[in-house]
Amino acid sequence: MFSKDTYIRRRNRLRKDVGNGLIVLLGNEESSINFKDNWYHFRQDSSFLYFGAVALPSLTAIFDCDSGEDMILGDELTIDDIVWTGPQPSIASLAAQSGITKTAPSSQIETLLKNAISAGRHIHFIPPYREEHVTKLSAWTGKSIDEIRSGESIALIKAIISQRNIKTSEEIVELHKAVDLTSAMHLAAMQYAKPGMKEAEIAARVNQVALAGEGQLSFPVIMTKNGQVLHNHYHGNTIQEGDMILCDTGAEIPSGYAGDMTRTFPVSAQFSETQRELYQTVLNAHEVAISALKPGIRYKDVHLLACVELAKGLTEVGLMKGNPEEAVAAGAHTMFFQCGLGHMMGMDVHDMENLGEPLVGYSDTLKKSTEFGLKSLRLGKELEAGFVITVEPGIYIIPELIDQWKAENKYAEFLNYDKLESYKSFGGIRIEEDFVITENGADLLGKPVAKTVKDVEEIRKEALQS
Amino acid sequence: MFSKDTYIRRRNRLRKDVGNGLIVLLGNEESSINFKDNWYHFRQDSSFLYFGAVALPSLTAIFDCDSGEDMILGDELTIDDIVWTGPQPSIASLAAQSGITKTAPSSQIETLLKNAISAGRHIHFIPPYREEHVTKLSAWTGKSIDEIRSGESIALIKAIISQRNIKTSEEIVELHKAVDLTSAMHLAAMQYAKPGMKEAEIAARVNQVALAGEGQLSFPVIMTKNGQVLHNHYHGNTIQEGDMILCDTGAEIPSGYAGDMTRTFPVSAQFSETQRELYQTVLNAHEVAISALKPGIRYKDVHLLACVELAKGLTEVGLMKGNPEEAVAAGAHTMFFQCGLGHMMGMDVHDMENLGEPLVGYSDTLKKSTEFGLKSLRLGKELEAGFVITVEPGIYIIPELIDQWKAENKYAEFLNYDKLESYKSFGGIRIEEDFVITENGADLLGKPVAKTVKDVEEIRKEALQS
Repeated sequence: MFSKDTYIRRRNRLRKDVGNGLIVLLGNEESSINFKDNWYHFRQDSSFLYFGAVALPSLTAIFDCDSGEDMILGDELTIDDIVWTGPQPSIASLAAQSGITKTAPSSQIETLLKNAISAGRHIHFIPPYREEHVTKLSAWTGKSIDEIRSGESIALIKAIISQRNIKTSEEIVELHKAVDLTSAMHLAAMQYAKPGMKEAEIAARVNQVALAGEGQLSFPVIMTKNGQVLHNHYHGNTIQEGDMILCDTGAEIPSGYAGDMTRTFPVSAQFSETQRELYQTVLNAHEVAISALKPGIRYKDVHLLACVELAKGLTEVGLMKGNPEEAVAAGAHTMFFQCGLGHMMGMDVHDMENLGEPLVGYSDTLKKSTEFGLKSLRLGKELEAGFVITVEPGIYIIPELIDQWKAENKYAEFLNYDKLESYKSFGGIRIEEDFVITENGADLLGKPVAKTVKDVEEIRKEALQS
Repeated sequence: MFSKDTYIRRRNRLRKDVGNGLIVLLGNEESSINFKDNWYHFRQDSSFLYFGAVALPSLTAIFDCDSGEDMILGDELTIDDIVWTGPQPSIASLAAQSGITKTAPSSQIETLLKNAISAGRHIHFIPPYREEHVTKLSAWTGKSIDEIRSGESIALIKAIISQRNIKTSEEIVELHKAVDLTSAMHLAAMQYAKPGMKEAEIAARVNQVALAGEGQLSFPVIMTKNGQVLHNHYHGNTIQEGDMILCDTGAEIPSGYAGDMTRTFPVSAQFSETQRELYQTVLNAHEVAISALKPGIRYKDVHLLACVELAKGLTEVGLMKGNPEEAVAAGAHTMFFQCGLGHMMGMDVHDMENLGEPLVGYSDTLKKSTEFGLKSLRLGKELEAGFVITVEPGIYIIPELIDQWKAENKYAEFLNYDKLESYKSFGGIRIEEDFVITENGADLLGKPVAKTVKDVEEIRKEALQS
């Protein structure tokens, strides 16, 4: 965690930006797996962590915009608890570290909020993504479940985004650590995979690296020979010579910051010729996108630059035809690249996604598209210095999509359906890295991991000889 | 999963036992970590899996006790979903595998349940442990949140317990697999730990074994040099010569069955004399308990036998005094053994804990004690052939408890507080295995893992030489 002053400054600005009323930030609860007391690993809500800094379950923070008073409400441990958990620092002592001197038992929340509502004061909260936040807010405010679901404060959301958007230098230090651990996970996967292994074994290996580094996964591991399935969490296949592995994984470190990278590598010591061609195309698109990163450019435009580069490579290979710019303008490239170039990253791997993509990734002047492809681009707005983003172009050959579009003769002027048939079992390729936007361009986060064909093949060669 | 007939038989018996009305089993949802679409690994509800057998999120099963009709309600994937998830078997095809031929979209649930309620029919559900089940049931039935929280069906709970209590031979096969994987995790930990490692590195290693074996953890790993903290999930300490590691971990296999074992081993190649004495005491209590396992004995009595054996050993060492039986009758042993000897195990590591300990672990004639120690014994009732249970005695030296009881001069006739002072940094020891109760006794589940002093030290010696 950062200095006390950092948190005080953040809260002062937040209260000022919101203006008036009470800001209520709900910390997360323990999350039950298959019965109440069997828990997934605890993850504090990122905004709670950002402003309140205490990573314990079942806390609520209330910041009073009018009086300027901040408090954390929650229940201290009893001796019965301590038998099970060991001695723990008190909520009061942890809150004091972020400059919050007032704490109280959670039984006071309801009275506090209901009194405020009676006095005509506004209660600001962000959209709940865990159902217990909905029922708690409903009980505390006397509002119905439906009123809570649609009652989020746009003023609060915007105020939080305006701060968390821009990562400070102390946050960049944390992000470098998170991506360093992420890099180590990727290198481990490339060095570990052998023909005959199950995907689960390689997934287990990268998970081990994250946990041994005192991290967690920032999202479920994608480790698959079927990289064309964008969110593939099945790890039951056995990998063989000739397959490619798409590994999309990242670590989250104890301070809450995330990394998110993807590498695609051959199970054999070398890519096949077909694999190499498309891999190089994705890498070219990746590099074109990185070169374009700087304050002022819309990320949507960076996305489109990458799409054109993908279309050029796909045209050279003969899977697309016609003019690449025109193909992208028409949307034909979405046969291969159905999703977006990247997203914000920070304490959340899709940073602030719980606050809503329209406000996080877009703006009053740039709304999100509803077209196939662009509708999956999470970030479109103008980049600013201090934004942290992922760049992750890919080529995904999805047999079901080929069949459907071929039947419709869709984009027939740009797509070579005949050749596509022979690529149906190709799979998918993605290359992903994380960047912070600087005054003039962008800096890579974390330790670089092999990404050229030559460098990747070198690691695979060594791995297969060991 | 088992044969279609197994599931049909289970549901026939369930409907008959419940008698009338509609049984509604809610499958689990994806569980959000820090924003809606970032999920912990999916875990289906165990009762849903036991009777419905489909391990997909967002499903609901309705079994009609009056008509005998069973159905699963949920929404099939669209082509947009398939781009992200790849082609998946349909709900209908999966349901058919367990003999459920009727499926419908989830939009029909509300009408179905409200019509049934209007017709005066009873809706049976089990106590929700995930909040979204509360709000869904409330919306579907028109009952308030509070009515849902207290509206569980005792008839349904009892009917489920009466089946899941007794593990069939096909379930025992699965449990052996789960405990085999659990055994492998423990052996890996003993072979891997070295002085200078962080606890997190060893925890990561056992997690790797579970995942590489295509399992999951059945509960969060306890891997600590502070074994006296019963539920210790902190992994930040560095282990040193002279420390003991308490490793309490288990795997869950894809069929949903769990393992749960504990081993305590020295970081050095050998236990210290002090460690060896108390380790042997715990092992003796473990063996005494195992020898007592058979149908007809109350598990509470097995627990008390183990407690007396612990008290005997602690008396020999000089930490307790007086008559061990009398000490246990008075409760003095709870200074060292604050919890229970074990619990039911099955698809849940604490099997059916979501159905409530009073009904799962106790009976109409044996109620749970409220005394310190016994109130933490999850299982007290008479054992029956087919029960699967854990046996996990321990000795935990908790400095905070010593200070508190010493100040109260509690159990002074049985506790040697002077000697206890010198044990304050001792830590904790637990030895845990899993058993199925047979017609005449009990069988160990899974491959045996070293547990005698000699066998444990042999593995540690090899580990430190490698």
